[in-house]
Amino acid sequence: KGPEDGKESPSEKILDGFKTSSVLSDSAREKIMFIHGKIADQDAVVILEKTPFREETLTELLSDSTLKLEMKNDIYNSYRLQAPPHLNEIKTTVVYPATEKHIKRHQRQESFLVEETGEDYRSITLPYIEKQSFSLQWVYNILEKKAEAQRIIFEDPDTETGFVLLPDLKWDQKQVDDLYLIAISLQRGIKSLRDLSSEHLPLLQNILQKGQDAIKQRFDLPASKLRVYLHYQPSYYHLHVHFTKLGYEAPGCGVERAHLLSDVIQNLKSDPQFYQTRTLHFPLRADDGLLAKFREAERL
Amino acid sequence: KGPEDGKESPSEKILDGFKTSSVLSDSAREKIMFIHGKIADQDAVVILEKTPFREETLTELLSDSTLKLEMKNDIYNSYRLQAPPHLNEIKTTVVYPATEKHIKRHQRQESFLVEETGEDYRSITLPYIEKQSFSLQWVYNILEKKAEAQRIIFEDPDTETGFVLLPDLKWDQKQVDDLYLIAISLQRGIKSLRDLSSEHLPLLQNILQKGQDAIKQRFDLPASKLRVYLHYQPSYYHLHVHFTKLGYEAPGCGVERAHLLSDVIQNLKSDPQFYQTRTLHFPLRADDGLLAKFREAERL
Repeated sequence: KGPEDGKESPSEKILDGFKTSSVLSDSAREKIMFIHGKIADQDAVVILEKTPFREETLTELLSDSTLKLEMKNDIYNSYRLQAPPHLNEIKTTVVYPATEKHIKRHQRQESFLVEETGEDYRSITLPYIEKQSFSLQWVYNILEKKAEAQRIIFEDPDTETGFVLLPDLKWDQKQVDDLYLIAISLQRGIKSLRDLSSEHLPLLQNILQKGQDAIKQRFDLPASKLRVYLHYQPSYYHLHVHFTKLGYEAPGCGVERAHLLSDVIQNLKSDPQFYQTRTLHFPLRADDGLLAKFREAERL
Repeated sequence: KGPEDGKESPSEKILDGFKTSSVLSDSAREKIMFIHGKIADQDAVVILEKTPFREETLTELLSDSTLKLEMKNDIYNSYRLQAPPHLNEIKTTVVYPATEKHIKRHQRQESFLVEETGEDYRSITLPYIEKQSFSLQWVYNILEKKAEAQRIIFEDPDTETGFVLLPDLKWDQKQVDDLYLIAISLQRGIKSLRDLSSEHLPLLQNILQKGQDAIKQRFDLPASKLRVYLHYQPSYYHLHVHFTKLGYEAPGCGVERAHLLSDVIQNLKSDPQFYQTRTLHFPLRADDGLLAKFREAERL
């Protein structure tokens, strides 16, 4: 062993003077936390993340730890396990000195579930969308082959029922495990679920059927491996449909925002005005302008 | 302190004789591992899950731990942090003795999306459920206060519309970020969504309303922070409703398996027989006996 053994480098003392200002965000599911604080009056961001279990240290972990009983019911027993520190490390990243940008990047935005009746849509949401007039130029560029033309996986050129299918930007196409494609309707002016009625059934059925066929052809994934859905609220107001691999927990596939296309089709078949009359629930982030409108209308 | 201090109960020694057979599955993202092994020649399933970070112990965690430098690059520094065991516990669940079914349930498995018409339910799914006769004893233990009585958060004792609300075993109750509660109907014999009709509206509305109220009261979370839903297929065939925090991507909250309780209520109001007639989609794992039945019937 060398002469440095037992000595800590100054950098290993970096957190000794750390003062927490606030938790920027955290994920209980992923066991990660982003913390803003100060070290010697300068901003720092500390990222803590518990480490995954490793099969090769499992025997040691189970034999060298202490169990504390929490609950017993029938064959189910639950405990808190206290492990030797070296078998249960925490990945720690310190960004120091950190800029404003580093801090903002990790800041959590709370979400709120909004309840929107058909009337709320017409009196609150629709005027908001129309006033914003979000630019759809990038969508039209795709549809007109002015951009991303080489990324198109499949196209049906029918002006009524046609669409283009292309990989979502979140998917690197390196593996099908996290397959994520978007079908964009050629027909313009269908802003969202709320604009759909039974007249759109041929369009929706065409996207479902030909989208599934194209994915089977190109990626060898059958329909039984796909989750096909719309978002409400969508992130842009031009009709598009998400195709993600079943088993991949794609962002935005939760029940509070996603609507299975097959359910949408069934709903429109049983009630042509389903999406004009139904109360819909969806999450909005705290800084979303639409949330402010729901608050003003005392609907939250 | 009482005379029992310092003594370990026999159940806290449960893992001393544990022999690992295999890792059934794990998630590096969620820091969870499912292990199959033997205790005294009987099968056991051990589930290890790292616990989320807690803001209230952060200062202690950062000051009482040791950092080991991994990498330095400009303002980015990364370390392994070794924490005091009591500040970095591992949630441990032991199912013992475990059946073949418990072992299979946690085995990594591909899933397939199944399309089930009302007729498929009656000819394939229902006979399968009835033949399996899954044990609901642990549910009845809870309803009869023979187990987990001290865990109950809220109870409405009405025999028709009543329910008990308690934390899901997946939730350690240390922070509300990953709040996960289950409302279990006192009424027996409602197997799933498929059994619901308009006569159950008072029960469902009661669970939604009083469940939300109890969570507001106890955890200070308003309804706009909650995702309230049923699973189809459920993991056990006794009516229960999931309450999870919006923003927490709880396992099983995806659109392919979850049904918002508020949508279920609307559906039953507009069509009392909605869930007897509607085609429903849900994922089944490759080793699920029900999937084999759908295959036999050439419905996959």
